[in-house]
Amino acid sequence: MFGVYGIPDASSLVVLGMHALQHRGQEACGMASFDGKRFHDEKHMGHVGDAFFGKDLSVTLPGSSAIGHTRYSTAGGSVLRNVQPMFADMAAGGVALAHNGNLTNFLTLREQLVSEGTIFSSTSDSEIILHLIARSRKSRVVDRFIDALSQIEGGYALVALTNKKLIGVRDPLGIRPLVLGQIDGKFVLASETCALEIIGAQFIRDIEHGEMVIISDQGIESRRPFPAAEARPCVFEYVYFARPDSIVNGRSVYEVRKRMGRRLFEESGARDADVVVPVPDSGVPAALGYAQAAGLPFEMGIIRNHYVGRTFIQPTQGARDHGVRMKLSPNRAVLAGKKVVLIDDSIVRGTNSVRVVRMVRDAGAKEVHLRSASPPIMWPDYYGIDMPDREKLLAATHSMAEMVKLLEVDSLGFLTVDGLYWAMDAGARDPIRPQFTDHYFTGDYPTRLMDKEIAEGRNEQVERQLSFLVSA
Amino acid sequence: MFGVYGIPDASSLVVLGMHALQHRGQEACGMASFDGKRFHDEKHMGHVGDAFFGKDLSVTLPGSSAIGHTRYSTAGGSVLRNVQPMFADMAAGGVALAHNGNLTNFLTLREQLVSEGTIFSSTSDSEIILHLIARSRKSRVVDRFIDALSQIEGGYALVALTNKKLIGVRDPLGIRPLVLGQIDGKFVLASETCALEIIGAQFIRDIEHGEMVIISDQGIESRRPFPAAEARPCVFEYVYFARPDSIVNGRSVYEVRKRMGRRLFEESGARDADVVVPVPDSGVPAALGYAQAAGLPFEMGIIRNHYVGRTFIQPTQGARDHGVRMKLSPNRAVLAGKKVVLIDDSIVRGTNSVRVVRMVRDAGAKEVHLRSASPPIMWPDYYGIDMPDREKLLAATHSMAEMVKLLEVDSLGFLTVDGLYWAMDAGARDPIRPQFTDHYFTGDYPTRLMDKEIAEGRNEQVERQLSFLVSA
Amino acid sequence: MFGVYGIPDASSLVVLGMHALQHRGQEACGMASFDGKRFHDEKHMGHVGDAFFGKDLSVTLPGSSAIGHTRYSTAGGSVLRNVQPMFADMAAGGVALAHNGNLTNFLTLREQLVSEGTIFSSTSDSEIILHLIARSRKSRVVDRFIDALSQIEGGYALVALTNKKLIGVRDPLGIRPLVLGQIDGKFVLASETCALEIIGAQFIRDIEHGEMVIISDQGIESRRPFPAAEARPCVFEYVYFARPDSIVNGRSVYEVRKRMGRRLFEESGARDADVVVPVPDSGVPAALGYAQAAGLPFEMGIIRNHYVGRTFIQPTQGARDHGVRMKLSPNRAVLAGKKVVLIDDSIVRGTNSVRVVRMVRDAGAKEVHLRSASPPIMWPDYYGIDMPDREKLLAATHSMAEMVKLLEVDSLGFLTVDGLYWAMDAGARDPIRPQFTDHYFTGDYPTRLMDKEIAEGRNEQVERQLSFLVSA
Amino acid sequence: MFGVYGIPDASSLVVLGMHALQHRGQEACGMASFDGKRFHDEKHMGHVGDAFFGKDLSVTLPGSSAIGHTRYSTAGGSVLRNVQPMFADMAAGGVALAHNGNLTNFLTLREQLVSEGTIFSSTSDSEIILHLIARSRKSRVVDRFIDALSQIEGGYALVALTNKKLIGVRDPLGIRPLVLGQIDGKFVLASETCALEIIGAQFIRDIEHGEMVIISDQGIESRRPFPAAEARPCVFEYVYFARPDSIVNGRSVYEVRKRMGRRLFEESGARDADVVVPVPDSGVPAALGYAQAAGLPFEMGIIRNHYVGRTFIQPTQGARDHGVRMKLSPNRAVLAGKKVVLIDDSIVRGTNSVRVVRMVRDAGAKEVHLRSASPPIMWPDYYGIDMPDREKLLAATHSMAEMVKLLEVDSLGFLTVDGLYWAMDAGARDPIRPQFTDHYFTGDYPTRLMDKEIAEGRNEQVERQLSFLVSA
Repeated sequence: MFGVYGIPDASSLVVLGMHALQHRGQEACGMASFDGKRFHDEKHMGHVGDAFFGKDLSVTLPGSSAIGHTRYSTAGGSVLRNVQPMFADMAAGGVALAHNGNLTNFLTLREQLVSEGTIFSSTSDSEIILHLIARSRKSRVVDRFIDALSQIEGGYALVALTNKKLIGVRDPLGIRPLVLGQIDGKFVLASETCALEIIGAQFIRDIEHGEMVIISDQGIESRRPFPAAEARPCVFEYVYFARPDSIVNGRSVYEVRKRMGRRLFEESGARDADVVVPVPDSGVPAALGYAQAAGLPFEMGIIRNHYVGRTFIQPTQGARDHGVRMKLSPNRAVLAGKKVVLIDDSIVRGTNSVRVVRMVRDAGAKEVHLRSASPPIMWPDYYGIDMPDREKLLAATHSMAEMVKLLEVDSLGFLTVDGLYWAMDAGARDPIRPQFTDHYFTGDYPTRLMDKEIAEGRNEQVERQLSFLVSA
Repeated sequence: MFGVYGIPDASSLVVLGMHALQHRGQEACGMASFDGKRFHDEKHMGHVGDAFFGKDLSVTLPGSSAIGHTRYSTAGGSVLRNVQPMFADMAAGGVALAHNGNLTNFLTLREQLVSEGTIFSSTSDSEIILHLIARSRKSRVVDRFIDALSQIEGGYALVALTNKKLIGVRDPLGIRPLVLGQIDGKFVLASETCALEIIGAQFIRDIEHGEMVIISDQGIESRRPFPAAEARPCVFEYVYFARPDSIVNGRSVYEVRKRMGRRLFEESGARDADVVVPVPDSGVPAALGYAQAAGLPFEMGIIRNHYVGRTFIQPTQGARDHGVRMKLSPNRAVLAGKKVVLIDDSIVRGTNSVRVVRMVRDAGAKEVHLRSASPPIMWPDYYGIDMPDREKLLAATHSMAEMVKLLEVDSLGFLTVDGLYWAMDAGARDPIRPQFTDHYFTGDYPTRLMDKEIAEGRNEQVERQLSFLVSA
Repeated sequence: MFGVYGIPDASSLVVLGMHALQHRGQEACGMASFDGKRFHDEKHMGHVGDAFFGKDLSVTLPGSSAIGHTRYSTAGGSVLRNVQPMFADMAAGGVALAHNGNLTNFLTLREQLVSEGTIFSSTSDSEIILHLIARSRKSRVVDRFIDALSQIEGGYALVALTNKKLIGVRDPLGIRPLVLGQIDGKFVLASETCALEIIGAQFIRDIEHGEMVIISDQGIESRRPFPAAEARPCVFEYVYFARPDSIVNGRSVYEVRKRMGRRLFEESGARDADVVVPVPDSGVPAALGYAQAAGLPFEMGIIRNHYVGRTFIQPTQGARDHGVRMKLSPNRAVLAGKKVVLIDDSIVRGTNSVRVVRMVRDAGAKEVHLRSASPPIMWPDYYGIDMPDREKLLAATHSMAEMVKLLEVDSLGFLTVDGLYWAMDAGARDPIRPQFTDHYFTGDYPTRLMDKEIAEGRNEQVERQLSFLVSA
Repeated sequence: MFGVYGIPDASSLVVLGMHALQHRGQEACGMASFDGKRFHDEKHMGHVGDAFFGKDLSVTLPGSSAIGHTRYSTAGGSVLRNVQPMFADMAAGGVALAHNGNLTNFLTLREQLVSEGTIFSSTSDSEIILHLIARSRKSRVVDRFIDALSQIEGGYALVALTNKKLIGVRDPLGIRPLVLGQIDGKFVLASETCALEIIGAQFIRDIEHGEMVIISDQGIESRRPFPAAEARPCVFEYVYFARPDSIVNGRSVYEVRKRMGRRLFEESGARDADVVVPVPDSGVPAALGYAQAAGLPFEMGIIRNHYVGRTFIQPTQGARDHGVRMKLSPNRAVLAGKKVVLIDDSIVRGTNSVRVVRMVRDAGAKEVHLRSASPPIMWPDYYGIDMPDREKLLAATHSMAEMVKLLEVDSLGFLTVDGLYWAMDAGARDPIRPQFTDHYFTGDYPTRLMDKEIAEGRNEQVERQLSFLVSA
């Protein structure tokens, strides 16, 4: 998510910010702008570059304020009408809204709204928030937002554009990130600092947990619409989701990942290895940290093919089983005859790990020691990270011995939760806990899970035959 | 509009019906079907043939009930989200709805709904009706429909599909047409009988003014949800809108048009002419009627080019002024040296008439006597016929003498309103009046005009900057 | 085909001409222009309007000379690389070439060229001509053309654009038409006069049989590259192919068709009929002629649906047998209870006639008397009219009695060849014969049939597995 | 380039091989297959994944032999008709042909062929070769190939498919690479070994310089159609072009690049640096080699954004100068306050280096020491590597001092040509020279430069207004 207020041709900056945030959502992208009179929007399936580069956005998305969003599909089907920003004409004026994360009382709210005669034109969480804003009895737009926010639960960050304001909100616990930047004296909002970097904006500060900022011609105003609470940002942003060059909640993602690798070696270093090889790209920083701590050579033993199409090949007679090799390729010169420590950022279902380990072995590795730079994932996420239900999580369903056998590795190691906190806190002996939400590892969910389907762990199955309508 | 209930692969019949009704709307088309579990829809800009022919509709639009619509743009912008049928998930189940015609309290209702927190995803009249249905406090679907219908005003016919019913409604005065047909013992609804013909269905009867029919597995039920009123169907269906091979309200459109031509000759036949030439295609039947009455040869003195693209050419340096010739071409062999009676169905702005007359003269006609097979159009329509505001109607702003001069004709004649009624009533001396709505000629509107903009004749200008949103 | 020389933005005129000539080829269309330095081309499947209207052709097809072509598929597959104009870079400069008609020594020439190492990039006749031009040892472009033309046989008209000339050629017998027009003192070439009409150009004269005209900055030059021969233009242009408003070889197509209808009545008028009904659109003029001669009312008893998509519907479970009704619809008010004389321009395979007759009967006609305004078609065409092999021609394989039975008509009549010549010659008692090529009726082919496949009547089957390559 | 012979659904393997070779050409891609009777082809602009993944290739590209190509645009415009494989119907049967590299007598041959009446349908080198094959007077296909090959000059590898054979050829000096692999006992040809890896094929051997292999049902046959010569493969494959996991001419590209980095440190290591940072991705292996030799930490100080669209953004008012940041982003945590050794694979124009150095400085680096892992590029390439003319090569036009100033670096170093040979030869004291073609560094071109434009260094300007035709 990226938002700009008060800069001519705002959409030309927003598109750059979206491009820098492409890793946060690759399924679809959309933008909305306001030109002083009217809102404009444009949405596409696919990547920002394919959708928006090379176009004259000052024509299709004119105006000095704009927001953009890249869609990561956790809820709602893959159709254009689910792409954000969502827009609504309201009596008080138009509102365009985009959000990251997920609501945990989505189904409850939707059912209630439908029973009151609300018609949904998408299956996206964003539309819920828009309807709540539209139906508020408050007269001022900001009060309508606060009204709506008081009814939703979950982990989210949102940016919204009205005819006079750019609004940013982070959920009460600050689960999803949102940062404030400045360029030429004007404010911008972004999911990560790497998006400030691309437009040359200066990082000002994180939006705080439970904070609402209202940017207008009068400058920036900060509100606290929620009851006070301790912050618990999502630790998975550091493990996998955020870009390594971003500074999230005051910490360099790259440095945290390197410390995870360092600590991983200290906790469960493989004995007598020859070489440290990352599963690219997300395993690279931890592998560097591990290699530096271990005094072993770091080598690109696996090469990633970055030319990936938008559709995937059907396995046919002649081309079976080439799955992982479409993306990853063994570098035989580095692997053959070696005892390899293979570093991945995390292990979710384990299916990818099985294939990578086999590929490394096929390339001649003598031993493969797999290390996960994060603790075993035991519980699903409901706040915007796409994870399967519990029964599909490898670590939730297998013992260490079973995993070693299944993954066909010579040894296997995970970072501990203690180690994770140590890495987050730059090496402090006793880091404050729970300073983050770490429910994937501990089951300690930071919010209640209102929707019955979520509370019962049937998130995935239910996932979401919400609409009776299937559009061709 | 076309609807089918209870026939396997209903959409393959609906697409044929839509094709036969293409003349009622050429901007866009859409279908919705119900397969017993889910609704399916598909919408396209452009013609039915380009959009749907050659596709396996049993895959994309499966099920034994389906409705389809061809869009004629009188209200709402030309964007896909305005294309019908509109669909809504409701607590009571899904509803797909399409309508012909226009509401005269559209803006009033929309403003009220928005003020209550309703979000619109289109600028189409249909969505108003859907919201009213969704917000009804009644529990049964039919009652919700009746609730909604009691709030709307105007001239319309609608077909709707629920998970158990196909519903058809004609407004209290029966302004827009709707007919009931039968094939293999199953019911179909269509705007005109020509759509029954194409699928080989039998014509049963017109849906009556103010009637609601509910077709289900239990057969057909008829309801009368409105206060009783005298019928006043739109006479312009006979003049121009309906296809000549349709039977509308019990009258052959072709025969009515021929009688208009006959009466036109009787009322204001051109003296001493050589040949009767229609402006094709809509002027053909009246020209035949005129020629037969006059004992003059009927000739195709103007050839119509039926290959028309979906976009129109920009006049450039080399190609200026070829406007009318893109569509019509003079047949010199018939026109040269002749005194021509040129028959058109009606004259609205007059711009087209000017060009056709000039083309006929350029082809060598010695005299041109223009005759309109309908009375002078003095007032705009608000019930679904696309007409400009009063100040752009030729007859509303020019005297006969001025028109003769402007159109560069040797003589000019219009059918009288009496003559029109005579033609409608197959020659009765004293036809009952007003048996139809004839407001374009008389200003006698059959309903009140609730929306201020309509009442004040500012329909076109307002026309309808309804949404703050412009989508690229 | 349409060509313009010496008018700024020539392509904007060519596109209008192509639109007027759309009836001569509806499968694909292409244009080439020359801007003084370079050639430009653009080709599309489908209609001219869809392909080119609304575009700024001065950008994509700049220059003051241009040619255009609408493709009618008789030879070569339906792929873009077969669409004309074809272009070749030659040592002498570029040449863009388009043609109507067919070569009868196509396979012979192609085989010879391939054996000499020529690579074909299409399966179109035009490419043969281009290769012959390219391989000529003459140095001047016009001489190269003549060299090439001396090697080809068949019926054709062609227009070609070089960097300095617009060239038009009509085959030695003038089988296919080509006319010369003038606008603002500049010359244009067109297949029919209706294309001059649309741009407001003046008709100058027909290009003569065996004539080559060379239009350049020096004006127009006429050459006679072929041995002298008697003209034998294709009579089927009058029967069906040309537009009624065109003047072909000095005769109004509309008037000729009307005379065919008049003579048809005289030769084999149906006794005691009520009404004359054309199969629209091509049967209209003959039906008018018949009705005027017979003193019977002419009525539009069949309505044609002009909204036809570019693909055709698949017959499915629910939609079987609606074939003909997609295009034609019965006008019951005119047909019910009547003795109908049904006039069609010609009968080829008879399948369409069977369906139309049945439709008219189903609409309640008491009797159906089918009349063909041309003689029985007994032989296939090899000069650019798409006709099946002999065994599929109804009249070649059935006696009159068999046809009456098969077509389910009360009576059947064809124009005689004598009658056809009478109509062509405006009623002269003894028209000169053979003044036209009439081989479809007589088997008297005006040229030798060089290709063995053609000579043996296996045109259709061979038709044309020419390329080893199938492109997706 | 990738070719498969004798494996059912060969195209499903070819598409994988093309995907692995995507880095060799990203502009367009094409495939041709032979199904025993006919050839099939399909071509697209853009990447293999977007073009071919997710399609059922057994339908569109059936058969047990197939070849594929990814286009890298050095010659010929970016239009579909230039995309390979090129196909020709010949008297001897069809031939599909694809090649890498460039001919140095392209213009000479083309001019000669055109003067003999050959028509070109593209501006690609491949078509020249096809025409030479088609025009050969030899009767056997292999002899026709040899005939054609004897006329062309330059650096190239080619694969061709006939109805009975898969043919692979490497130019007399082996400038461009080509390897032979085997899977399930069947042969495959590929530009690099990484393409064998993806389908699980075994590497057999390099095709040798000047070798022609003919794969058929009879197995594999090797021919030597050229006069004997010493091999001089392109050293730039190791510097930049080939993938690091490939084995080219018996050497691991990754290992060679690491040795380049090691030697670069030894020859011109920066004193007193803190950290070694690669310009990703191509600089990574050399940076690892440098860091290991220097005992300095290797860090990902620059993050590459791999989501790049197919079109590039236009710099507008609001978004100027973000060029390099679209692709590369600084990792401040690693760079701030550091003395950075920045390693790139090579420096061509220098424009990218200027931007990267500035970006690293802006991120807070205290010193920036730029090192190129290859010698200064002084001369353009004419064998298939896209390089500008001499006057645009930084090192050819600037002294060391000027470059240091222009690039704004604290120090600058290049690998020596000696060092390059040392790295290629795994550290031998006196490597044989010239064992490779190294003309970019030395000006020692391995072939004569036949085309005058090339010989005179006007390659780029001439580049290639070959066709008079511009297609929209």
